[in-house]
Amino acid sequence: MTETRGQTGAPGATRKTRSDGVRSRASILQAAAQLATVEGIDGLSIGRLAEAVGMSKSGLYAHFGSKQELQLATIDAAEELFDAHVVEPATHSGAGLARLRALTENYLRYVEARVFVGGCFFAALVAEVDAREGPVRERAAQFMVDWMQRLTSAIRDAQAAGEIRSSEDPDQLAFELEALLLLANAQFVLANDPAPIERARVASARRLAAAAS
Amino acid sequence: MTETRGQTGAPGATRKTRSDGVRSRASILQAAAQLATVEGIDGLSIGRLAEAVGMSKSGLYAHFGSKQELQLATIDAAEELFDAHVVEPATHSGAGLARLRALTENYLRYVEARVFVGGCFFAALVAEVDAREGPVRERAAQFMVDWMQRLTSAIRDAQAAGEIRSSEDPDQLAFELEALLLLANAQFVLANDPAPIERARVASARRLAAAAS
Repeated sequence: MTETRGQTGAPGATRKTRSDGVRSRASILQAAAQLATVEGIDGLSIGRLAEAVGMSKSGLYAHFGSKQELQLATIDAAEELFDAHVVEPATHSGAGLARLRALTENYLRYVEARVFVGGCFFAALVAEVDAREGPVRERAAQFMVDWMQRLTSAIRDAQAAGEIRSSEDPDQLAFELEALLLLANAQFVLANDPAPIERARVASARRLAAAAS
Repeated sequence: MTETRGQTGAPGATRKTRSDGVRSRASILQAAAQLATVEGIDGLSIGRLAEAVGMSKSGLYAHFGSKQELQLATIDAAEELFDAHVVEPATHSGAGLARLRALTENYLRYVEARVFVGGCFFAALVAEVDAREGPVRERAAQFMVDWMQRLTSAIRDAQAAGEIRSSEDPDQLAFELEALLLLANAQFVLANDPAPIERARVASARRLAAAAS
């Protein structure tokens, strides 16, 4: 995915959707990811995407052989954007507690900045496919496992550094922080109101203060 | 909605989907609500439901004139079931802190008991329609407003009774409790694992202990 990222950023890429090549594929997938946060990943057929990006269905079939292939490629593209806004900047914040705070704060900013028009891509994806079967569901579940591990890993580092009490269960604390992020996203999108973002900030700061050594 | 509830409980109702009448309508809507938690409310067309319940499309058109009417009636039916499992039993728990605890505990039991096969109907609904427009979205948003008001109202009663500190912001505390419930549902459905249910229990008990006068 990192190979693709450098090729997506050029301004005007979205105006070149009719040309072939890697840039075109990347810009199609960004449009697909946006669309999926409003209409759902299941609404993402090659026909629907062709309509949305103004390409022919045959042109899209050249990029993606099937609806499922399109969906999986869209999830990869969405994860690149998520990483660029939430995960990658947190790696500059040192390890442990600083990284944990950066991950949660970056997530709230990513929601508030409407990186995806319909709110967090992965919150929407997981809610949509969690009770189904197949590769799209497994991909969504893997994202959540990876994300929770990022949080617990930062918590363990913070414990090793003496920043968070060793009596805290990392999985429990990660659950409580992620809960705040998930509801902040849900209420922000539903009510178009920044109050839940701030409530998540207040609660996670207080929870981390209570967990501090 | 209460008029309908008394007509849904008879055993065998689901075996009578081919007969006309009120009982049939209620059992069709229960099937529709279950289906929607797996395939989404947008997947709920008259054609898809006809296939799922083994009725003719024309038979379903006699009950519901349009996809949207079917969706709104399904949400009403799901809310009846939600009320019966979560809200109504909590009214027997007194007011204030006891009711607040009953609401959160009943919600966790409702998730764990798989009242809906795909997890909480309303968590799935809100995540699906939050970025769209129209009556289904407005109906989902109203449910969330009502539910959050139930929590804040119980918190205010608990404050009036001296059970929760007056310094607690009821909206903030309700947000924190609801966050735990939402993630418990999401992770329970995704991982088919009761651990998140227990994590939500532990965290809400600790949060309420910290809020206690």
